[in-house]
Amino acid sequence: MSRPLEVVLISGGMDSAVALGMTLKERFEAAGLHLNYGQKTEKREVRAFKEICDFYGIEKRLVVSLPYFRQIGGSSLTDEKIPVSTSGIDPQGIPSSYVPFRNAHGLSIATSWAEVLGASRIVIGAVEEDSSGYPDCREVFYKAFEQAIRLGTKPKTKIEIATPVIHFSKAEIVRKGSELGVPFHLTWSCYQNEEAACGVCDSCRLRLKGFEEAGVEDPIPYKEKEKIYA
Amino acid sequence: MSRPLEVVLISGGMDSAVALGMTLKERFEAAGLHLNYGQKTEKREVRAFKEICDFYGIEKRLVVSLPYFRQIGGSSLTDEKIPVSTSGIDPQGIPSSYVPFRNAHGLSIATSWAEVLGASRIVIGAVEEDSSGYPDCREVFYKAFEQAIRLGTKPKTKIEIATPVIHFSKAEIVRKGSELGVPFHLTWSCYQNEEAACGVCDSCRLRLKGFEEAGVEDPIPYKEKEKIYA
Repeated sequence: MSRPLEVVLISGGMDSAVALGMTLKERFEAAGLHLNYGQKTEKREVRAFKEICDFYGIEKRLVVSLPYFRQIGGSSLTDEKIPVSTSGIDPQGIPSSYVPFRNAHGLSIATSWAEVLGASRIVIGAVEEDSSGYPDCREVFYKAFEQAIRLGTKPKTKIEIATPVIHFSKAEIVRKGSELGVPFHLTWSCYQNEEAACGVCDSCRLRLKGFEEAGVEDPIPYKEKEKIYA
Repeated sequence: MSRPLEVVLISGGMDSAVALGMTLKERFEAAGLHLNYGQKTEKREVRAFKEICDFYGIEKRLVVSLPYFRQIGGSSLTDEKIPVSTSGIDPQGIPSSYVPFRNAHGLSIATSWAEVLGASRIVIGAVEEDSSGYPDCREVFYKAFEQAIRLGTKPKTKIEIATPVIHFSKAEIVRKGSELGVPFHLTWSCYQNEEAACGVCDSCRLRLKGFEEAGVEDPIPYKEKEKIYA
């Protein structure tokens, strides 16, 4: 009997890679979905997506381009006029890297694809507590969206949203990934560089802090590693 | 003082045109959003969008392309292998023209744009009762999605979803549009033709039935008008 299908959002970063590693321990077959939304490190992230899919032998893959995020702007990740913050994470408020309501787009695409494939679950590696304070990374948002999926798809369609790392700290993600043999060397987190990670954008800082706290060496190359914690 | 902003989803069809005409009676300034999602009549619909915006003097416009709907498929509107139904509407079940979870994509884009613009309302011309039975056209879906918007955007962002024609029949839409001077001659509803409407696809049938019941002449050209009611 074939295994049930799930659509896994794989950004190329460490959180979604660990979420994927965790979900592959269950009996689901994964279909990998990656979004190019005009982010500055788009090419490096799609390479990470492909290498992670190769690593896990994922055959069903969908890479979609959302060029409209650049038309909409409003984020340092998609708007050339807004610089990526490198001066440390502001514990208050929403950072400039917030892409307005971005995760809803990923969930909508995942839902459409899941409905066509007949998949019963969407997996997303969102992290609530130790993330950058993005509102669309909170569990309450996913619960609300799951309800919208239930009411906005065919009656026979049943799709749940799994957020396996939502309450993990970055250190717990590193520990869990190490335990499961997740290929961290294939992942990419930096918001601004594609060759060697910058080490100072919010995403690099959170990643480095996670590896440091977990006592694990981060295998990807860095331009500089600043030991400034958020 | 400037008027509050709203993002109006303008498909080029008659429902969203009437929703727009109704909302412009209020004190909002409209920003027009149109989606090209790989539908067969994409070019004709974007022309209708532009002409409707010109008619109402809407300056803020965003036309976004969602080429991934063709990658996902699963609908007669986006998949060349699935023919558009022309044999009448099945009162049971979901028609082949259902594009899986499509309206969630439009709402997500509208929300991202509204958050960047500082708009406080999204207007969508979805019709629940007299539509083709699409699950993402029901009021319960919009209520659930509004909750997802509340939880997935910045705390200071307040965006509501207005569905002014959701409980209208097609005949009521025609009557309301006629009363408000909505430019029906600029709208396009046909799922398969771009020159003269086919008159026999589900969308043409619903439109023709609405005009007939309202006792109003439909001003757009038809290839054939079959008087078969759903």
